[in-house]
Amino acid sequence: MKKQIFTAAIAMFTLVSCTAQTQNIKLPAPEKTGGMPLMEALNNRKTQREFAPRELSQQELSNLLWAASGVNREDGRMTAPTATNAQQIVIFVATKDGVYEYLNQTHELKLHLRGDHREVFAQQQATLFNAPLLLAYVSDWSKMERQPNDEGRKKYSHTDAGNVSQNVYLYCASAGLATVAIGRFDSEQFIKTLNLGSNYYPVLNQAIGFPAN
Amino acid sequence: MKKQIFTAAIAMFTLVSCTAQTQNIKLPAPEKTGGMPLMEALNNRKTQREFAPRELSQQELSNLLWAASGVNREDGRMTAPTATNAQQIVIFVATKDGVYEYLNQTHELKLHLRGDHREVFAQQQATLFNAPLLLAYVSDWSKMERQPNDEGRKKYSHTDAGNVSQNVYLYCASAGLATVAIGRFDSEQFIKTLNLGSNYYPVLNQAIGFPAN
Repeated sequence: MKKQIFTAAIAMFTLVSCTAQTQNIKLPAPEKTGGMPLMEALNNRKTQREFAPRELSQQELSNLLWAASGVNREDGRMTAPTATNAQQIVIFVATKDGVYEYLNQTHELKLHLRGDHREVFAQQQATLFNAPLLLAYVSDWSKMERQPNDEGRKKYSHTDAGNVSQNVYLYCASAGLATVAIGRFDSEQFIKTLNLGSNYYPVLNQAIGFPAN
Repeated sequence: MKKQIFTAAIAMFTLVSCTAQTQNIKLPAPEKTGGMPLMEALNNRKTQREFAPRELSQQELSNLLWAASGVNREDGRMTAPTATNAQQIVIFVATKDGVYEYLNQTHELKLHLRGDHREVFAQQQATLFNAPLLLAYVSDWSKMERQPNDEGRKKYSHTDAGNVSQNVYLYCASAGLATVAIGRFDSEQFIKTLNLGSNYYPVLNQAIGFPAN
Protein backbone atom coordinates (compact mmCIF):
# COMPACT_ATOMS: atom_id res chain seq x y z
CA MET A 1 0.00 0.00 0.00
CA LYS A 2 2.78 2.43 1.04
CA LYS A 3 4.66 1.47 -2.12
CA GLN A 4 1.60 2.24 -4.26
CA ILE A 5 1.17 5.68 -2.64
CA PHE A 6 4.89 6.35 -3.14
CA THR A 7 4.67 5.31 -6.83
CA ALA A 8 1.60 7.51 -7.32
CA ALA A 9 3.39 10.43 -5.65
CA ILE A 10 6.43 9.94 -7.90
CA ALA A 11 4.19 9.82 -10.98
CA MET A 12 2.39 12.99 -9.93
CA PHE A 13 5.69 14.76 -9.20
CA THR A 14 6.99 13.75 -12.63
CA LEU A 15 3.84 15.06 -14.30
CA VAL A 16 4.02 18.38 -12.46
CA SER A 17 7.71 18.68 -13.34
CA CYS A 18 7.03 17.99 -16.98
CA THR A 19 4.21 20.53 -17.05
CA ALA A 20 6.46 23.11 -15.44
CA GLN A 21 9.18 22.36 -17.96
CA THR A 22 6.93 22.71 -20.98
CA GLN A 23 4.98 25.76 -19.81
CA ASN A 24 5.92 28.80 -21.87
CA ILE A 25 6.99 32.05 -20.26
CA LYS A 26 4.61 34.85 -21.15
CA LEU A 27 6.56 38.06 -21.81
CA PRO A 28 5.10 41.42 -20.74
CA ALA A 29 3.37 43.24 -23.61
CA PRO A 30 5.94 45.10 -25.72
CA GLU A 31 5.93 48.89 -25.69
CA LYS A 32 4.97 49.71 -29.28
CA THR A 33 5.25 53.45 -28.86
CA GLY A 34 8.15 55.65 -27.81
CA GLY A 35 11.85 55.09 -28.17
CA MET A 36 14.37 57.43 -29.75
CA PRO A 37 13.33 59.27 -32.94
CA LEU A 38 14.42 57.04 -35.83
CA MET A 39 17.05 59.40 -37.29
CA GLU A 40 18.68 59.73 -33.85
CA ALA A 41 18.64 55.97 -33.36
CA LEU A 42 20.36 55.61 -36.75
CA ASN A 43 22.86 58.29 -35.74
CA ASN A 44 23.61 56.35 -32.53
CA ARG A 45 23.80 52.93 -34.21
CA LYS A 46 27.15 51.29 -33.51
CA THR A 47 28.88 48.09 -32.52
CA GLN A 48 30.01 47.71 -28.90
CA ARG A 49 31.81 44.57 -27.76
CA GLU A 50 32.11 45.01 -24.00
CA PHE A 51 29.27 44.45 -21.59
CA ALA A 52 28.44 45.17 -17.95
CA PRO A 53 27.08 42.17 -15.99
CA ARG A 54 23.71 43.95 -15.40
CA GLU A 55 20.81 41.98 -16.88
CA LEU A 56 17.97 43.35 -18.97
CA SER A 57 14.58 43.68 -17.29
CA GLN A 58 11.70 41.52 -18.54
CA GLN A 59 10.21 44.63 -20.16
CA GLU A 60 13.46 45.40 -21.97
CA LEU A 61 13.72 41.79 -23.14
CA SER A 62 10.10 41.92 -24.32
CA ASN A 63 10.69 45.16 -26.25
CA LEU A 64 13.95 43.89 -27.73
CA LEU A 65 12.47 40.63 -29.03
CA TRP A 66 9.40 42.37 -30.40
CA ALA A 67 11.65 44.92 -32.14
CA ALA A 68 13.78 42.06 -33.53
CA SER A 69 10.98 40.14 -35.19
CA GLY A 70 7.74 40.59 -33.27
CA VAL A 71 4.26 40.64 -34.76
CA ASN A 72 3.16 44.13 -35.84
CA ARG A 73 0.01 43.29 -37.82
CA GLU A 74 -3.16 41.31 -37.23
CA ASP A 75 -2.26 38.78 -39.91
CA GLY A 76 0.85 37.80 -37.96
CA ARG A 77 3.34 39.68 -40.14
CA MET A 78 6.40 41.04 -38.46
CA THR A 79 8.71 43.98 -37.81
CA ALA A 80 11.33 42.29 -40.06
CA PRO A 81 10.46 41.06 -43.55
CA THR A 82 11.25 37.59 -44.88
CA ALA A 83 11.53 36.61 -48.53
CA THR A 84 8.17 35.31 -49.85
CA ASN A 85 6.89 35.81 -46.28
CA ALA A 86 8.42 32.44 -45.29
CA GLN A 87 8.81 33.59 -41.65
CA GLN A 88 11.70 31.14 -41.36
CA ILE A 89 13.95 32.96 -38.89
CA VAL A 90 13.76 31.36 -35.43
CA ILE A 91 15.27 33.37 -32.59
CA PHE A 92 16.95 31.45 -29.77
CA VAL A 93 17.62 33.45 -26.61
CA ALA A 94 20.45 32.48 -24.26
CA THR A 95 20.87 33.73 -20.70
CA LYS A 96 22.89 32.27 -17.83
CA ASP A 97 19.81 30.19 -16.93
CA GLY A 98 18.97 28.55 -20.22
CA VAL A 99 18.25 28.69 -23.92
CA TYR A 100 14.75 29.68 -24.99
CA GLU A 101 12.94 29.92 -28.29
CA TYR A 102 11.12 33.19 -28.93
CA LEU A 103 7.58 32.40 -30.09
CA ASN A 104 6.78 35.69 -31.79
CA GLN A 105 3.16 34.86 -32.63
CA THR A 106 2.28 34.57 -28.93
CA HIS A 107 5.17 36.71 -27.61
CA GLU A 108 6.35 33.94 -25.31
CA LEU A 109 9.59 32.19 -24.48
CA LYS A 110 9.70 28.42 -24.71
CA LEU A 111 12.40 26.67 -22.71
CA HIS A 112 14.67 24.82 -25.12
CA LEU A 113 17.60 23.83 -22.89
CA ARG A 114 18.42 24.43 -19.23
CA GLY A 115 21.75 25.85 -18.12
CA ASP A 116 24.30 28.36 -19.33
CA HIS A 117 25.11 27.70 -22.98
CA ARG A 118 26.03 31.25 -23.99
CA GLU A 119 29.55 30.14 -24.90
CA VAL A 120 28.33 28.16 -27.91
CA PHE A 121 26.71 31.34 -29.28
CA ALA A 122 30.04 33.19 -29.40
CA GLN A 123 32.79 30.66 -30.11
CA GLN A 124 34.98 31.12 -27.07
CA GLN A 125 35.11 34.91 -27.29
CA ALA A 126 34.64 35.49 -23.56
CA THR A 127 33.96 39.23 -23.78
CA LEU A 128 31.01 38.34 -25.99
CA PHE A 129 29.58 35.19 -24.35
CA ASN A 130 29.66 36.90 -20.97
CA ALA A 131 27.06 39.35 -22.23
CA PRO A 132 23.86 38.80 -20.23
CA LEU A 133 21.94 38.00 -23.40
CA LEU A 134 22.81 36.25 -26.62
CA LEU A 135 20.46 35.78 -29.54
CA ALA A 136 20.80 33.30 -32.38
CA TYR A 137 19.02 33.76 -35.70
CA VAL A 138 18.47 30.27 -37.07
CA SER A 139 16.75 29.62 -40.36
CA ASP A 140 14.17 26.83 -40.50
CA TRP A 141 14.59 25.58 -44.05
CA SER A 142 11.42 23.48 -43.80
CA LYS A 143 9.54 26.79 -44.16
CA MET A 144 11.42 27.78 -47.34
CA GLU A 145 9.80 25.37 -49.78
CA ARG A 146 9.37 28.22 -52.28
CA GLN A 147 13.16 28.41 -52.73
CA PRO A 148 14.24 25.89 -55.37
CA ASN A 149 17.64 25.03 -53.86
CA ASP A 150 20.07 25.44 -50.96
CA GLU A 151 21.73 28.39 -52.72
CA GLY A 152 18.45 30.33 -52.54
CA ARG A 153 17.72 29.17 -49.00
CA LYS A 154 21.17 30.33 -47.85
CA LYS A 155 20.91 33.74 -49.55
CA TYR A 156 17.55 34.64 -48.09
CA SER A 157 18.42 33.18 -44.70
CA HIS A 158 21.31 35.63 -44.50
CA THR A 159 19.41 38.61 -45.89
CA ASP A 160 16.48 38.04 -43.57
CA ALA A 161 18.68 37.50 -40.51
CA GLY A 162 20.39 40.78 -41.43
CA ASN A 163 16.99 42.48 -41.25
CA VAL A 164 16.39 41.11 -37.75
CA SER A 165 19.90 42.00 -36.61
CA GLN A 166 19.54 45.61 -37.76
CA ASN A 167 16.30 45.95 -35.79
CA VAL A 168 18.23 44.79 -32.72
CA TYR A 169 21.05 47.26 -33.44
CA LEU A 170 18.55 50.11 -33.62
CA TYR A 171 16.63 49.02 -30.52
CA CYS A 172 19.93 48.90 -28.63
CA ALA A 173 20.92 52.36 -29.92
CA SER A 174 17.56 53.70 -28.74
CA ALA A 175 17.58 51.95 -25.35
CA GLY A 176 21.22 52.64 -24.41
CA LEU A 177 22.25 49.00 -24.82
CA ALA A 178 25.46 47.66 -26.33
CA THR A 179 25.40 45.03 -29.06
CA VAL A 180 27.55 43.21 -31.59
CA ALA A 181 26.58 40.77 -34.32
CA ILE A 182 28.58 37.54 -34.33
CA GLY A 183 29.05 35.97 -37.73
CA ARG A 184 31.87 33.65 -36.76
CA PHE A 185 30.89 30.76 -34.47
CA ASP A 186 31.09 26.97 -34.60
CA SER A 187 27.73 26.19 -36.18
CA GLU A 188 28.23 22.41 -35.92
CA GLN A 189 28.83 22.69 -32.18
CA PHE A 190 25.88 25.08 -31.92
CA ILE A 191 23.56 22.61 -33.67
CA LYS A 192 24.84 19.74 -31.50
CA THR A 193 24.44 21.63 -28.22
CA LEU A 194 20.92 22.83 -29.07
CA ASN A 195 20.09 19.42 -30.59
CA LEU A 196 18.61 20.99 -33.72
CA GLY A 197 17.22 18.98 -36.62
CA SER A 198 18.75 18.98 -40.10
CA ASN A 199 16.23 21.60 -41.28
CA TYR A 200 17.88 24.26 -39.08
CA TYR A 201 20.60 26.48 -40.55
CA PRO A 202 22.31 28.79 -38.01
CA VAL A 203 22.93 32.17 -39.67
CA LEU A 204 24.02 34.85 -37.26
CA ASN A 205 24.23 35.45 -33.53
CA GLN A 206 24.20 38.67 -31.53
CA ALA A 207 25.36 39.64 -28.03
CA ILE A 208 23.42 42.26 -26.06
CA GLY A 209 23.82 43.99 -22.71
CA PHE A 210 24.49 47.27 -21.01
CA PRO A 211 27.76 48.89 -22.10
CA ALA A 212 30.76 48.13 -19.87
CA ASN A 213 31.36 51.79 -19.07
CA MET B 1 42.11 80.94 -88.49
CA LYS B 2 38.34 80.40 -88.35
CA LYS B 3 38.96 76.65 -88.35
CA GLN B 4 41.38 76.97 -85.42
CA ILE B 5 38.90 78.97 -83.37
CA PHE B 6 36.20 76.44 -84.21
CA THR B 7 38.47 73.54 -83.16
CA ALA B 8 39.37 75.33 -79.92
CA ALA B 9 35.68 75.98 -79.24
CA ILE B 10 34.87 72.32 -79.80
CA ALA B 11 37.73 71.27 -77.50
CA MET B 12 36.51 73.64 -74.79
CA PHE B 13 32.93 72.46 -75.15
CA THR B 14 34.06 68.83 -74.83
CA LEU B 15 36.06 69.66 -71.72
CA VAL B 16 33.13 71.47 -70.13
CA SER B 17 30.81 68.59 -71.02
CA CYS B 18 33.21 66.04 -69.54
CA THR B 19 33.55 68.09 -66.37
CA ALA B 20 29.78 68.35 -66.09
CA GLN B 21 29.46 64.61 -66.60
CA THR B 22 31.98 63.69 -63.95
CA GLN B 23 30.96 66.29 -61.37
CA ASN B 24 29.26 64.62 -58.43
CA ILE B 25 25.89 65.78 -57.18
CA LYS B 26 26.13 67.06 -53.62
CA LEU B 27 23.09 65.96 -51.62
CA PRO B 28 21.61 68.30 -49.02
CA ALA B 29 22.80 67.51 -45.49
CA PRO B 30 20.75 64.64 -44.02
CA GLU B 31 18.41 65.37 -41.13
CA LYS B 32 19.99 63.36 -38.31
CA THR B 33 17.31 64.20 -35.77
CA GLY B 34 13.57 63.64 -35.79
CA GLY B 35 11.55 60.97 -37.49
CA MET B 36 9.03 58.64 -35.92
CA PRO B 37 9.88 57.18 -32.48
CA LEU B 38 11.66 53.88 -33.16
CA MET B 39 9.01 51.58 -31.68
CA GLU B 40 6.33 53.27 -33.80
CA ALA B 41 8.48 52.98 -36.92
CA LEU B 42 8.88 49.24 -36.16
CA ASN B 43 5.13 48.98 -35.62
CA ASN B 44 4.54 50.61 -39.03
CA ARG B 45 7.19 48.59 -40.87
CA LYS B 46 5.64 46.77 -43.80
CA THR B 47 6.04 45.85 -47.46
CA GLN B 48 4.07 47.87 -50.02
CA ARG B 49 4.32 47.03 -53.71
CA GLU B 50 2.34 49.82 -55.41
CA PHE B 51 3.65 53.31 -55.91
CA ALA B 52 2.33 56.73 -56.88
CA PRO B 53 4.31 58.55 -59.61
CA ARG B 54 5.27 61.39 -57.22
CA GLU B 55 9.05 61.69 -56.80
CA LEU B 56 10.96 62.09 -53.57
CA SER B 57 12.39 65.52 -52.81
CA GLN B 58 16.18 65.94 -52.70
CA GLN B 59 15.94 66.19 -48.90
CA GLU B 60 13.96 62.93 -48.68
CA LEU B 61 16.49 61.22 -50.96
CA SER B 62 19.32 62.55 -48.82
CA ASN B 63 17.70 61.33 -45.61
CA LEU B 64 16.87 57.96 -47.13
CA LEU B 65 20.40 57.28 -48.37
CA TRP B 66 21.95 58.43 -45.12
CA ALA B 67 19.55 56.17 -43.20
CA ALA B 68 20.42 53.29 -45.54
CA SER B 69 24.16 53.38 -45.05
CA GLY B 70 25.32 56.93 -44.37
CA VAL B 71 28.24 57.94 -42.20
CA ASN B 72 27.26 58.43 -38.55
CA ARG B 73 30.71 58.71 -36.93
CA GLU B 74 33.85 60.75 -37.47
CA ASP B 75 35.87 57.67 -38.41
CA GLY B 76 33.57 57.08 -41.39
CA ARG B 77 31.60 54.21 -39.87
CA MET B 78 28.02 53.87 -40.89
CA THR B 79 24.38 53.48 -39.88
CA ALA B 80 24.54 49.85 -41.09
CA PRO B 81 27.28 47.47 -39.91
CA THR B 82 29.41 45.33 -42.21
CA ALA B 83 31.28 42.17 -41.24
CA THR B 84 34.88 43.00 -40.24
CA ASN B 85 34.02 46.61 -41.15
CA ALA B 86 34.65 45.82 -44.82
CA GLN B 87 32.24 48.57 -45.94
CA GLN B 88 31.68 46.55 -49.12
CA ILE B 89 28.04 47.40 -49.86
CA VAL B 90 27.78 49.87 -52.74
CA ILE B 91 24.38 51.48 -53.26
CA PHE B 92 23.30 52.25 -56.81
CA VAL B 93 20.36 54.64 -57.15
CA ALA B 94 18.09 54.51 -60.20
CA THR B 95 15.62 57.20 -61.21
CA LYS B 96 13.99 57.90 -64.58
CA ASP B 97 17.01 60.08 -65.38
CA GLY B 98 19.91 57.80 -64.66
CA VAL B 99 21.78 55.43 -62.39
CA TYR B 100 23.99 56.95 -59.71
CA GLU B 101 26.40 55.56 -57.14
CA TYR B 102 25.86 56.81 -53.59
CA LEU B 103 29.20 57.96 -52.19
CA ASN B 104 28.39 57.75 -48.50
CA GLN B 105 31.70 59.20 -47.25
CA THR B 106 31.00 62.52 -48.99
CA HIS B 107 27.18 62.14 -49.17
CA GLU B 108 27.18 62.66 -52.94
CA LEU B 109 25.73 60.99 -55.99
CA LYS B 110 28.08 60.04 -58.79
CA LEU B 111 26.53 59.58 -62.22
CA HIS B 112 27.09 56.00 -63.34
CA LEU B 113 24.82 55.73 -66.39
CA ARG B 114 22.43 58.14 -68.08
CA GLY B 115 18.84 57.19 -68.89
CA ASP B 116 16.06 55.16 -67.38
CA HIS B 117 17.37 51.74 -66.36
CA ARG B 118 14.94 51.06 -63.51
CA GLU B 119 13.61 47.98 -65.28
CA VAL B 120 16.85 46.05 -64.81
CA PHE B 121 16.55 46.60 -61.04
CA ALA B 122 13.21 44.81 -60.89
CA GLN B 123 13.16 42.09 -63.55
CA GLN B 124 10.18 43.15 -65.63
CA GLN B 125 7.85 43.58 -62.67
CA ALA B 126 6.32 46.84 -63.93
CA THR B 127 4.57 47.76 -60.67
CA LEU B 128 8.02 47.73 -59.06
CA PHE B 129 10.25 49.29 -61.71
CA ASN B 130 7.79 52.16 -62.16
CA ALA B 131 8.57 53.24 -58.61
CA PRO B 132 10.29 56.66 -58.77
CA LEU B 133 13.34 55.27 -57.01
CA LEU B 134 15.11 51.94 -57.08
CA LEU B 135 18.15 51.06 -55.02
CA ALA B 136 20.59 48.22 -55.61
CA TYR B 137 22.84 46.86 -52.88
CA VAL B 138 25.90 45.50 -54.65
CA SER B 139 28.78 43.92 -52.78
CA ASP B 140 32.31 44.90 -53.81
CA TRP B 141 34.21 41.68 -53.16
CA SER B 142 37.54 43.44 -53.63
CA LYS B 143 36.94 44.93 -50.16
CA MET B 144 36.31 41.52 -48.55
CA GLU B 145 39.86 40.21 -48.50
CA ARG B 146 39.40 39.06 -44.89
CA GLN B 147 36.89 36.43 -46.04
CA PRO B 148 38.75 33.27 -47.07
CA ASN B 149 36.37 32.18 -49.85
CA ASP B 150 33.32 32.97 -51.96
CA GLU B 151 31.07 31.16 -49.48
CA GLY B 152 32.04 33.67 -46.78
CA ARG B 153 31.83 36.62 -49.17
CA LYS B 154 28.32 35.60 -50.22
CA LYS B 155 27.08 35.08 -46.66
CA TYR B 156 28.22 38.44 -45.37
CA SER B 157 27.18 40.24 -48.55
CA HIS B 158 23.64 39.05 -47.92
CA THR B 159 23.64 39.71 -44.19
CA ASP B 160 25.06 43.19 -44.62
CA ALA B 161 22.67 44.08 -47.46
CA GLY B 162 19.87 42.94 -45.16
CA ASN B 163 21.05 45.48 -42.59
CA VAL B 164 20.90 48.28 -45.18
CA SER B 165 17.52 47.14 -46.47
CA GLN B 166 16.01 47.15 -42.99
CA ASN B 167 17.20 50.72 -42.43
CA VAL B 168 15.38 51.67 -45.63
CA TYR B 169 12.23 49.83 -44.50
CA LEU B 170 12.25 51.75 -41.24
CA TYR B 171 12.99 55.11 -42.87
CA CYS B 172 10.05 54.51 -45.23
CA ALA B 173 7.78 53.53 -42.32
CA SER B 174 8.75 56.75 -40.56
CA ALA B 175 8.46 59.02 -43.62
CA GLY B 176 5.21 57.63 -45.02
CA LEU B 177 6.91 56.00 -48.00
CA ALA B 178 6.17 52.62 -49.54
CA THR B 179 8.92 50.09 -50.15
CA VAL B 180 9.59 46.50 -51.13
CA ALA B 181 12.84 44.55 -51.21
CA ILE B 182 13.46 42.73 -54.49
CA GLY B 183 15.48 39.55 -54.16
CA ARG B 184 14.61 38.11 -57.54
CA PHE B 185 16.13 39.92 -60.52
CA ASP B 186 18.38 39.01 -63.44
CA SER B 187 21.77 39.73 -61.90
CA GLU B 188 23.66 38.92 -65.12
CA GLN B 189 21.58 41.46 -67.03
CA PHE B 190 22.01 43.92 -64.17
CA ILE B 191 25.82 43.55 -64.25
CA LYS B 192 25.85 43.89 -68.04
CA THR B 193 23.65 47.01 -68.10
CA LEU B 194 25.63 48.75 -65.35
CA ASN B 195 28.90 47.47 -66.85
CA LEU B 196 30.18 46.27 -63.49
CA GLY B 197 33.53 44.52 -63.00
CA SER B 198 33.87 40.93 -61.86
CA ASN B 199 34.43 42.06 -58.26
CA TYR B 200 30.81 43.23 -57.99
CA TYR B 201 28.18 40.83 -56.62
CA PRO B 202 24.59 42.14 -56.83
CA VAL B 203 22.74 41.11 -53.66
CA LEU B 204 19.39 42.79 -53.25
CA ASN B 205 17.40 45.64 -54.77
CA GLN B 206 14.63 47.77 -53.29
CA ALA B 207 11.85 49.91 -54.79
CA ILE B 208 10.77 53.10 -53.00
CA GLY B 209 8.10 55.72 -53.53
CA PHE B 210 4.94 57.22 -52.14
CA PRO B 211 2.16 54.67 -51.67
CA ALA B 212 -0.30 54.38 -54.56
CA ASN B 213 -3.29 55.31 -52.43
